[in-house]
Amino acid sequence: MFLSDKAKRLTPYVAGIQPQEEGWVKLNTNENPYPPSPKVTEALHTADITNLRLYPDGESSSLKAAIASVFAVGEENVFCANSSDEVLALAFQAFFSGKSRIITPDISYGFYPVWGEMYDVGMIFAPLRDDFSINISDYNPSNGVVIANPNAPTSLALGLADIEKIAMQNSSSVVLVDEAYIDFAQVESAVSLIGKCKNVLVVRTFSKSHSLAGLRVGYAIGSPKLIEGLRRMRDAFNSYPLDMLAQIGATAAISDTDYLKETTTRIIATRGKTTAALEAMGYKVLPSHANFIFFHAANAGALYQFLLDNKILARYWSKPRISEFIRVSIGTDEDMEVFVKCVRQFSSGEQKNP
Amino acid sequence: MFLSDKAKRLTPYVAGIQPQEEGWVKLNTNENPYPPSPKVTEALHTADITNLRLYPDGESSSLKAAIASVFAVGEENVFCANSSDEVLALAFQAFFSGKSRIITPDISYGFYPVWGEMYDVGMIFAPLRDDFSINISDYNPSNGVVIANPNAPTSLALGLADIEKIAMQNSSSVVLVDEAYIDFAQVESAVSLIGKCKNVLVVRTFSKSHSLAGLRVGYAIGSPKLIEGLRRMRDAFNSYPLDMLAQIGATAAISDTDYLKETTTRIIATRGKTTAALEAMGYKVLPSHANFIFFHAANAGALYQFLLDNKILARYWSKPRISEFIRVSIGTDEDMEVFVKCVRQFSSGEQKNP
Repeated sequence: MFLSDKAKRLTPYVAGIQPQEEGWVKLNTNENPYPPSPKVTEALHTADITNLRLYPDGESSSLKAAIASVFAVGEENVFCANSSDEVLALAFQAFFSGKSRIITPDISYGFYPVWGEMYDVGMIFAPLRDDFSINISDYNPSNGVVIANPNAPTSLALGLADIEKIAMQNSSSVVLVDEAYIDFAQVESAVSLIGKCKNVLVVRTFSKSHSLAGLRVGYAIGSPKLIEGLRRMRDAFNSYPLDMLAQIGATAAISDTDYLKETTTRIIATRGKTTAALEAMGYKVLPSHANFIFFHAANAGALYQFLLDNKILARYWSKPRISEFIRVSIGTDEDMEVFVKCVRQFSSGEQKNP
Repeated sequence: MFLSDKAKRLTPYVAGIQPQEEGWVKLNTNENPYPPSPKVTEALHTADITNLRLYPDGESSSLKAAIASVFAVGEENVFCANSSDEVLALAFQAFFSGKSRIITPDISYGFYPVWGEMYDVGMIFAPLRDDFSINISDYNPSNGVVIANPNAPTSLALGLADIEKIAMQNSSSVVLVDEAYIDFAQVESAVSLIGKCKNVLVVRTFSKSHSLAGLRVGYAIGSPKLIEGLRRMRDAFNSYPLDMLAQIGATAAISDTDYLKETTTRIIATRGKTTAALEAMGYKVLPSHANFIFFHAANAGALYQFLLDNKILARYWSKPRISEFIRVSIGTDEDMEVFVKCVRQFSSGEQKNP
């Protein structure tokens, strides 16, 4: 009886399971198997906790400066908030609320349609091709575009030239490029476009390549007008979105570019080995640009359940077009050996009892 | 050209200044002058940073359990988020969005009308009496009530019986009681009402009495139906609102009830001394239930500026009804001696040059 119509109507996002007990091989939410940079630990363990009595810097100035420096952009091109989910939710409100004809792929991050409903956005779901690639000619003049690049759960990516074409085709509306997984990709980031394409807003996270899912830090890079729109929205919602420790930890993480390179290289290598192992068993694996792979399994639901019974968490959606696919995050080499072994067991069982 | 109509229309909240440089006596945002409990420092400095690679517990289960234990309520009565501002913004969306006739005092926390505009809520501003007290008969059957108790910036509080009357008068709509300052009050918390009044949602923060403004942790206590409404809203916005360190720090803080008592007692004593000193100079000080005082000064704008020129930050609003008042946070005894001395200087100057 107390709920608003909006609260009654909405369909919340369902995130992957986060088991609190030990003993799982957790490959369901694309977390990084390696710890954050040792510089993050050092910064957090020596942080002056007495300062927590004060409000944090609402603008996250030090973090913004560190991000700007890594990407060689101005601080006026950067906006930080409590996870890239929060950045995206603010962007939907700032640029898309009340508008119709926002185009996004039919298979993509499950939170986009939720925000569309929450913030009264008219979403058009452009079908991916049969091979799950994006047909950029679908992204015609619109009131906005939302594209995850690399896309999830497909793991595929568009090249920079294609992102630029989409931006040009939609020059009077905002093109959100969600680059949560870009550090694992063989394509270039769209950050290089923000000078030329004032409508491109690149959204990034510390959760994946920086191993900081637990710290909830996301950011956006774009033209000052777009950044100003996000700031207006933030200041009408929560003036201090990022706590002091999150700012300190993320600043240490983004400054350690060597560690980022080392860990992403390792994950990409493990991805290659896992892909090869699955292909050797006859599975079709999509060419991944992310820290997960998406592969075809005729009996995907049963395989998901078999993995679960063996305490391996993967992700499966019983949804049109992707119900014969499994998404599995790339863990350590050891994690993936356990996973591959389990898939092998399942496959041989399948062959024995068809 | 890129902004949504909502983004163009809204009037962001303007928080108190957060100077990043040293040398200020900062009495403008009701921060606690004492550091957080030593147990917070210990918990944060020994936290296992490698765990940050994983998503945090979206439900903040340990923190929820600690809060439930302190207030002797069930865990199903507690909801945690990234600051009480976020809790309040989610509550506006969950319970008030699209509704008209939400009643709130005309003088209160400046963020309420901002959220009203953001989330399409029809706000009715009930005028406080001339002495800034709330006339509870104004809070008639409505679609919702929002009351800060103690109220800010007035520092006045309603007794529990009055809150209960308001809840009863509005039994079919949600009554939000924002208790940011209740630990400094001589009135009882409305938490004791939540069993009887299923429509009462009490909102609290770690920013004031727990000295954790920098950590951004807020929570709500209410009937399971209301908590469920907040959870739905959260899961349509950002599934993991509180980072792991914020959960750890806040859990340590709320468990140290002795430290809370010790520091709030000290602040209340300093408030008494400051009030007496201002009254001795002839200023009228409202009887404060908060960690700030609100006092009348005929030339409040000039006094604010004089304090500012002397590197003392207070808060002043050049708004109807309160343009002859100054709000000043209670700092340490030393802070308040500097403040009182400066007011005395201003007053004697005023007398010399009327």
